[in-house]
Amino acid sequence: MAPFWSIMKRSTSNSPPNHHKAAKMAAGLTSSSTSTTDSTHKNSSENTSISQFGAVLPDSDYSTFLSDVMVVGAGPAGLMLADNLVRFGIKTHIVDDRPDRTSTGRADGLQPKSIETLRQMRLAEPLVRKGAKIYDIAFWKSTTEKSLHRTGREIHYPPVVDLLDPYILLVHQGMVEGLFEVDLQERGVEVIRNTAFTDFEYTPEKVRPLTVHCKQNVSHTNKSFGTRYVIGCDGAHSRVRKCIPNATPVGASSDAVWGVLDGVLDTNFPDIWSKVVVHSDALGSVLMIPRERNMTRLYIELKPGSEEATSKEQHTQEFVQKRAQQIMQPYRLQWRTVEWFGRYQIGQRVAARFMDPEQRVFIAGDASHTHSPKAAQGMNTSMHDAWNLAWKLNFSVRNLSKPILMETYEQERKKIAQDLIDFDYEHANAFAAGDPQALANNFTKNVAFISGYGVSYEPNVLNIHSPKHYPRGHLTPGFLLPPAKVTRFIDANPVDIQTDIPALGQFRIYFFTNHVISSLPFLDAVSNAHISSSSYVGRITQAANASYTTQPPLAAPHDQFVCPERYTPVSGVFTYALVTPERGDLEIEHLPHVLRESPFSIYLDDIPEKDTRGQSCRDKWLGGLTDGEVVVVNVRPDGYVGCVRRFSDGGRENGAQAVEWLDRYYEGFMRDQ
Amino acid sequence: MAPFWSIMKRSTSNSPPNHHKAAKMAAGLTSSSTSTTDSTHKNSSENTSISQFGAVLPDSDYSTFLSDVMVVGAGPAGLMLADNLVRFGIKTHIVDDRPDRTSTGRADGLQPKSIETLRQMRLAEPLVRKGAKIYDIAFWKSTTEKSLHRTGREIHYPPVVDLLDPYILLVHQGMVEGLFEVDLQERGVEVIRNTAFTDFEYTPEKVRPLTVHCKQNVSHTNKSFGTRYVIGCDGAHSRVRKCIPNATPVGASSDAVWGVLDGVLDTNFPDIWSKVVVHSDALGSVLMIPRERNMTRLYIELKPGSEEATSKEQHTQEFVQKRAQQIMQPYRLQWRTVEWFGRYQIGQRVAARFMDPEQRVFIAGDASHTHSPKAAQGMNTSMHDAWNLAWKLNFSVRNLSKPILMETYEQERKKIAQDLIDFDYEHANAFAAGDPQALANNFTKNVAFISGYGVSYEPNVLNIHSPKHYPRGHLTPGFLLPPAKVTRFIDANPVDIQTDIPALGQFRIYFFTNHVISSLPFLDAVSNAHISSSSYVGRITQAANASYTTQPPLAAPHDQFVCPERYTPVSGVFTYALVTPERGDLEIEHLPHVLRESPFSIYLDDIPEKDTRGQSCRDKWLGGLTDGEVVVVNVRPDGYVGCVRRFSDGGRENGAQAVEWLDRYYEGFMRDQ
Repeated sequence: MAPFWSIMKRSTSNSPPNHHKAAKMAAGLTSSSTSTTDSTHKNSSENTSISQFGAVLPDSDYSTFLSDVMVVGAGPAGLMLADNLVRFGIKTHIVDDRPDRTSTGRADGLQPKSIETLRQMRLAEPLVRKGAKIYDIAFWKSTTEKSLHRTGREIHYPPVVDLLDPYILLVHQGMVEGLFEVDLQERGVEVIRNTAFTDFEYTPEKVRPLTVHCKQNVSHTNKSFGTRYVIGCDGAHSRVRKCIPNATPVGASSDAVWGVLDGVLDTNFPDIWSKVVVHSDALGSVLMIPRERNMTRLYIELKPGSEEATSKEQHTQEFVQKRAQQIMQPYRLQWRTVEWFGRYQIGQRVAARFMDPEQRVFIAGDASHTHSPKAAQGMNTSMHDAWNLAWKLNFSVRNLSKPILMETYEQERKKIAQDLIDFDYEHANAFAAGDPQALANNFTKNVAFISGYGVSYEPNVLNIHSPKHYPRGHLTPGFLLPPAKVTRFIDANPVDIQTDIPALGQFRIYFFTNHVISSLPFLDAVSNAHISSSSYVGRITQAANASYTTQPPLAAPHDQFVCPERYTPVSGVFTYALVTPERGDLEIEHLPHVLRESPFSIYLDDIPEKDTRGQSCRDKWLGGLTDGEVVVVNVRPDGYVGCVRRFSDGGRENGAQAVEWLDRYYEGFMRDQ
Repeated sequence: MAPFWSIMKRSTSNSPPNHHKAAKMAAGLTSSSTSTTDSTHKNSSENTSISQFGAVLPDSDYSTFLSDVMVVGAGPAGLMLADNLVRFGIKTHIVDDRPDRTSTGRADGLQPKSIETLRQMRLAEPLVRKGAKIYDIAFWKSTTEKSLHRTGREIHYPPVVDLLDPYILLVHQGMVEGLFEVDLQERGVEVIRNTAFTDFEYTPEKVRPLTVHCKQNVSHTNKSFGTRYVIGCDGAHSRVRKCIPNATPVGASSDAVWGVLDGVLDTNFPDIWSKVVVHSDALGSVLMIPRERNMTRLYIELKPGSEEATSKEQHTQEFVQKRAQQIMQPYRLQWRTVEWFGRYQIGQRVAARFMDPEQRVFIAGDASHTHSPKAAQGMNTSMHDAWNLAWKLNFSVRNLSKPILMETYEQERKKIAQDLIDFDYEHANAFAAGDPQALANNFTKNVAFISGYGVSYEPNVLNIHSPKHYPRGHLTPGFLLPPAKVTRFIDANPVDIQTDIPALGQFRIYFFTNHVISSLPFLDAVSNAHISSSSYVGRITQAANASYTTQPPLAAPHDQFVCPERYTPVSGVFTYALVTPERGDLEIEHLPHVLRESPFSIYLDDIPEKDTRGQSCRDKWLGGLTDGEVVVVNVRPDGYVGCVRRFSDGGRENGAQAVEWLDRYYEGFMRDQ
């Protein structure tokens, strides 16, 4: 079978492919009148579709304005979505009404799970290197009896949460956007800027039933785009959301008004390189966050009910700075530079629907939920909306999945948005109350959720609980994989197993066994079924491989160093992996086909002593493994556990049962033709 | 005192400073006839010097062709040198006769110490992310009795060497060059290409006594450059070396001829992602090295004495490939692509001199030593020649050091070159003999040296052994710091103490104490002396700060994320650091001036359990610390231990002794005016 990533389109900055040109033309950046043909996405019905859009498109180049997915808004959610889709090979347009990426202010915190996600995308390192890392929180307080003093210091992510990166990474939102934009550019795709979404309409066209209308700000011209899906990542005042029936956000605004200031401080306050919560009984609270480039972010509360909180004229930068100075007394607080000043009133709302009834229009990020920024959740939750949606859209566009897969998006992410609002409400109240202990308690209770590792999905078609087949073990369907270190068999490299296989929109199927040789009948049975049309999974692979052959993933030059072709040698939808305690006499050639072709995902579980709390991967994930057992773990493309099953031995009969069980799971939401 | 890095010149790609323009003009890339004045490096005697060069320079712009240091050759040694010098604020020209950086072939391996050095320069991450990592070696053999079989597998860097990065990082030489070139470009400096060094002459001019003559290949025009130092990093056939009296390389060529091939293999040989040594009794040896981008490098021996080794016509790529296929039988060995083919005969030679009698002309890298490439030492040793030389040149150009400092370059690096040749001779013999055990033994014996951590310097003016004052402990003058993890006091970030302070050409002075408060009299005494002219060290600081104020370091945009100003708040020549076991009631404000101003180099030695073999930094470096003791460690700008002293208690009297002792050490090679 074909290794898709080896046939993927390569684009370099020297020779932009049509995709790139198309994006530029749509953005009005080029005026070429030659017709560009989009060979990657050629579609038999495209010619008929063009005639239906003819009225609103210029004569010169119809295909320029056609896409599989139209992403509205190039913030963290929209860019995360577009970058994944483009990597998967989905023709994607991304429009934004702003002329450039975010230059100052807005979001600044990446939580551990988001860092891990970027690691899986092989994009994390520049941010990790450049950002400020928060490892602790200091609490300060002043009352009428006692002037400002430190009441305590806590580890931000205590060991109670098992994290690969146990810190908040402070980097400016524009840096995150820039990372995605550069990755998109390296794949030949540009954000179409100065382009505001107006509305969309359904047309009778079958392949691309949506026509999206936009206004280009500079020229005030109307542009229309034909597409199959529209995703609104266009912020709290989302226009896409307003076009979805019954999607009105539900919730309330709080009275608390906050000022936010980014700048370089001149201060003798000792803790500005930690996260600091300062509460003055008389004057309210300040939250300080260290930032990259020597900056500090200050959130300053304008006490609810006070004149300054209600009278909007007083919300000037000067007023807010002065208030901060008063709260921080007797410490000196001056600003060497101020890069950004903003004000906000907390609104906690969740959109009533995240998609339209036709399952063609979706919203993500601030468009679907708004809340307080203080727990550094916004950019993270928004990116994870997109992360959840991207792989589902890829399968849908490719017609590899059933409609129920798209339904899981709203089901899963709306629950998370509600969890977030509930936490945020508690957190904001604890914060406003000014009791460090209450705040610390609230934090401890929610620390797993805040880090992103505790964000979990309910049982559904993707997350199948089966206590009968998985009586013990720590992995839980709908939850993430705990971090664990193993050794790659083929090159003896120690790796983090949960991020080692890059995110290519594929499921991972891990086999665990203490004795590979005695488990060969089991592994053979699965492998044989999966490379033939005798199993549902095998037929999914055949359909997917055909799809990826005609519409391959879109590569960037730096993918040469990721070598994605190593991870989908057998199937575009599944990476097969094996975990076993020791090398022994094992040679790759002993393994059945699907594993023999996957040498980069064969692992030795032999480094329990290092960085993993003394536990092997088998301990951490499965609560140990008895000598005879074989365990099969299905991991979703977004890194969540799908389902797990223990088999008492590695015999052929259990292998046949595993084939059936896997078929049943994937039949729930994938198509086999 | 001034924080120099905060006044350093910022250069961005949008507004190249004169420096940049100068380089471009010298390279003939621009034809501007306007005069550029080099405000950073203004020098009172510059006008007189110009007249002396007038004859050979065009009228338009004299300063374009003037520099502090002229680096000849833009390979890894030349670029490492130029990049450091430019960062330190030294006006540097770098010329190369090639039209572009290395595109294929040549060196490919970075050893652990080189990775650490690049970490100190904050340049390592992109390479670490993109390179292939070698963690193990497999040995294979075929004899007349037994066909090709694996005889063993070894960890490449066993725990006997204490390494932060216990692997060889395989990245193409061009990637390393590119890293430095981009960093130089971000500081406004371009490599002057197509420019071949011809010779140099001494002139009576005082500030820049050297005139360097070059030929520009494309236009065949002669260009002359006025400079103070010339460094030949121009490879094995160095023309700079030929201009140094009595510098002829000493050594011999071996008979062994090797072919080298880079390409993507199609093979069923199972170990190509490990380093592999294959020996055929009948046909010779093959060494396989995994590379980035799915490539494998093969070194193939053409058996000494055989016809193919002596008849040069047979050294074709085809012949070498066929020979490799024969050695690797019965395994299939085909090439999907071949990126590079080369041949070489091992020559092991060390130049008799590394500098000229006037201490103005130096050689580094292959210009000073040649040897076999198989132990992946070449690029590493070359870069470390430059690393040793760069900070010494900086102090010399600034007139902050005594002539003896430059003498230590030849003294230290010639010894290393000789050590390398000796090792290489043994290693090549063990390799050729084909006895895996002998090769493994040779490797084990030399593993610390190979990794770069075992590379050590003899006692000299920089490396002062004093068993009386330092009766126990693991740090040794002339040796590197073992890796250790500590917590940064100010932000609770866990860091690798040996690389945490970025390389800014400065010494590091670490104070170790278990009880900061009871050591305050000691620390106060040192601090007070060091911020006044009462001590020699204080006067060095005053002279250095004056120098860095008129000729500041040259910043790149990404330095904003490194924040170099955090590490030289008091002195351009010294970073002060404190290591103590626990936070307790310690506040930064308790500390004396030099430490209070250095909050980013105050460390808590509180993570012995993590990744540091159960040892604290105090254990690892000092063999423990008793409760009363204060230990002072001086670390050279290149990371080598200079001198260490234990003091029995933290009283004022010992502090006064420490001041004297520090004065004596730095008086050995630094100037105080």
